Amino acid sequence: MKIAISGLGRMGSQIAKKLHDGGHEVVAHNRSRESVDEAASYGAIPAYDKAAVISAFDNQPVILWIMIPAEAIDNELDDWLKILPGGSIIIDGGNSDYRGDEARASRANNSNCIMLDIGTSGGVWGITNGFSMMVGGNKTAYDTVKPVLDTLALPRGGHQYFGETGRGHFVKMVHNAIEYGMMESLAEGYRILSEGPYKDINLADAGDIWQKSSVVTSWLNDLTYQAIKENPNLENISGVVAESGEARWTLETADQLNIPLPAIKAAFDVRLESQKGEVNFSTKLLAAMRNKFGGHDVNSR
Amino acid sequence: MKIAISGLGRMGSQIAKKLHDGGHEVVAHNRSRESVDEAASYGAIPAYDKAAVISAFDNQPVILWIMIPAEAIDNELDDWLKILPGGSIIIDGGNSDYRGDEARASRANNSNCIMLDIGTSGGVWGITNGFSMMVGGNKTAYDTVKPVLDTLALPRGGHQYFGETGRGHFVKMVHNAIEYGMMESLAEGYRILSEGPYKDINLADAGDIWQKSSVVTSWLNDLTYQAIKENPNLENISGVVAESGEARWTLETADQLNIPLPAIKAAFDVRLESQKGEVNFSTKLLAAMRNKFGGHDVNSR
Repeated sequence: MKIAISGLGRMGSQIAKKLHDGGHEVVAHNRSRESVDEAASYGAIPAYDKAAVISAFDNQPVILWIMIPAEAIDNELDDWLKILPGGSIIIDGGNSDYRGDEARASRANNSNCIMLDIGTSGGVWGITNGFSMMVGGNKTAYDTVKPVLDTLALPRGGHQYFGETGRGHFVKMVHNAIEYGMMESLAEGYRILSEGPYKDINLADAGDIWQKSSVVTSWLNDLTYQAIKENPNLENISGVVAESGEARWTLETADQLNIPLPAIKAAFDVRLESQKGEVNFSTKLLAAMRNKFGGHDVNSR
Repeated sequence: MKIAISGLGRMGSQIAKKLHDGGHEVVAHNRSRESVDEAASYGAIPAYDKAAVISAFDNQPVILWIMIPAEAIDNELDDWLKILPGGSIIIDGGNSDYRGDEARASRANNSNCIMLDIGTSGGVWGITNGFSMMVGGNKTAYDTVKPVLDTLALPRGGHQYFGETGRGHFVKMVHNAIEYGMMESLAEGYRILSEGPYKDINLADAGDIWQKSSVVTSWLNDLTYQAIKENPNLENISGVVAESGEARWTLETADQLNIPLPAIKAAFDVRLESQKGEVNFSTKLLAAMRNKFGGHDVNSR
């Protein structure tokens, strides 16, 4: 089907490419020209500004996938709503705060548009392995965009509808909070392997055997031991680890409900402390993992 | 090759069966008769007492795999050392404290026997998926028993040598500490899904989509959502969760070295608190996971 992708960053550019390769008609839009040029080079329809997106759809209703950082979504959405034809479907595929989804969906409704909140996991591997997509919002709109989600899921991803507005981003937020806890658990384990009583243990060998039907077998462990294999001493990694909101929002939500989440809290606090200079083998490994699954710079803040 | 298995509990009985099915000559020994009878029924050589094991090997050196709880290993080993012929190889395949391995290996040496410490993961699924085995101790003895480990690893397990005495149990101990942290992270996430702002989220659907190329894809998440699918409200699970030592020992080791392991500590503390009555959806889920991978009774302490 015909779909516009706005925001051609690490994830957005992959989504555009994968949809194009899957036979969809992709309109590619981004703030900066370079990534639009790149999409045009493989056959996407370039749209260097928002008006060009509308023209590419001949002023008919647009299916628009927005893939931008959480802090930019409200302004961007409002700019789009000024020009989108009624009946357009807007997918917020980014890691937006679920607590703002109701208001955004309501503003879209006021412009006769429909919003879907779709949490999208799979990192930079999504183009190869398929994306894992968690969907909230209008069920009819979900059914409409299913052909797009089916393509993005290929070959081993998937999509799942969780109910009304907010639930897609909420399930994705919790996913990311679990991710923080699992990453920290692995990072702590590898650190004690490395700095414990035995100085001759091969960490990559440990990670390798743990991937062979042990209880901790996981994609994260797979990426972790590969990172260690490539850079055993984690050189040129500062160990400062960014946090992008989801664990913080999960903890805020849990706090309001008096639900303790001690492991997720511990994992979150380690990242905050790393930003104050508390860096070590574990925090370097967290940065290395983020690089492996998400393409994040190992020294990004 | 010919091998005796002593301790036919959940793990030991599987190891004996898998080795028998793989063409090895298995001598089966256990304190109680029933599990020896069971092993005899499929063709293992029954040994109702330790002396019968020695006879089954015609007083020649024995290869002996001991699979018993950590607290029993010292006494059992000393009993075996009284009667084992010189040149015997003793595998401690249980979750013994690595800090006792040196002393045990040295007592074995004094009786002209050789010890290997082999951490064995894979739970009750090892017989199907293969065991993941982490080996420490004498390298020559490891090479000798490789045919046995090769069989136990089939089809997707493996074995890895980590160096001198203690390192096999140490790497397995750290594995289990990571396991505690990963389990707790998942349990906390599913709890906030269940008790958060949306009461209509299907938890099994969430776990299912998370297994489809999301960042938290893992064997533990796979077992977790299957447990929820079978018993959505986790009925008849008290939520008291046992701890079997490995996380505690990891934390003791880390403490001595001034290495903080906050996520693993949080996970461990939750289990201790559960034993004092602090039970909730998360701790019930931990018990359900332990049942799934290890066959542990959901209400065991």
